[in-house]
Amino acid sequence: MQDEWQCLSQEAGPDLKLFRARFDLMKNPRNGASERMLVLDSPDSVNVVPITTDGKIVFVRQYRFGIEDHTLELPGGIVDPGEGHEQGAIRELREETGGIALNWSYLGAIPSNPVFMNSYIHHWLAEGVSMSAQQELDTGEAVDVVAYPVEDVKNRLLEGSFQHPHTVNALLRYFSTQQLIK
Amino acid sequence: MQDEWQCLSQEAGPDLKLFRARFDLMKNPRNGASERMLVLDSPDSVNVVPITTDGKIVFVRQYRFGIEDHTLELPGGIVDPGEGHEQGAIRELREETGGIALNWSYLGAIPSNPVFMNSYIHHWLAEGVSMSAQQELDTGEAVDVVAYPVEDVKNRLLEGSFQHPHTVNALLRYFSTQQLIK
Repeated sequence: MQDEWQCLSQEAGPDLKLFRARFDLMKNPRNGASERMLVLDSPDSVNVVPITTDGKIVFVRQYRFGIEDHTLELPGGIVDPGEGHEQGAIRELREETGGIALNWSYLGAIPSNPVFMNSYIHHWLAEGVSMSAQQELDTGEAVDVVAYPVEDVKNRLLEGSFQHPHTVNALLRYFSTQQLIK
Repeated sequence: MQDEWQCLSQEAGPDLKLFRARFDLMKNPRNGASERMLVLDSPDSVNVVPITTDGKIVFVRQYRFGIEDHTLELPGGIVDPGEGHEQGAIRELREETGGIALNWSYLGAIPSNPVFMNSYIHHWLAEGVSMSAQQELDTGEAVDVVAYPVEDVKNRLLEGSFQHPHTVNALLRYFSTQQLIK
């Protein structure tokens, strides 16, 4: 194992709406060279694996501005200021889909992107979900709610059909902790 | 399915070294409201599942500036201008690890993050890898090379121990296409 990188200075970067950019001047332990590294600072986010009372997994279908196409993703979003990530998960499931769950359990977290983001995405399992609340979308959202049988979702996961790495990781946490994937 | 979002205007944003930021003013088909959406424009990247001649998978251990911690990741990086992503994969494996492969096959791609990035990460399987070339790191890199038996890597994947969603997705593509995960 090599020596550690040293942070020589930090420089504030532009506000990017979703992120505040920062540049850290880092000294490379391998060669002593200093390098300006981008960090996008943002709050943690959550996503939810919602299992309905009739054995389906709830997804949201929406247009994503990065790839200019629609995706099928687990419901989720950014944790609000002062909110815990479990509360964020409960809120996002209700707001995006109208879903209310009987049981919540934590599936763990992964860095959103460890290279240039300092946030994590927390995965929550919601069981006994009924679509009994009102969908409450933000002004900037347009979301269709769909649900597929668990076995169907497992096949789609193994075929590589999901288009968001955070949805893939949450589903893999769910299927592996339930011993449905081995 | 709802109507489509319309792009009303595009505004160039700051250069962020890894990305060029852009703001797209988008009209929401649900409510007619216009919203300024961040897009980080960057080239595609690649990562590689390198299987050695003695049945191990090669990883790189490095400090990641986003999370300020070390990660274990598959080798990879950004595709160079004018380079195809297969060539990028071959180059990154050699430069980061010194590895040379006998066979290359494509495992597919996933959006880096469909919400605010327009790039994809392409996953390549490299078989018959021998560590026969010289590691050639960029000035801004410090990387340790490690290798673990395939079964070991599968267990780590199912336990949720990898800390980069792109490494998780590439390994899941490998294990599921090889029918090693079902």
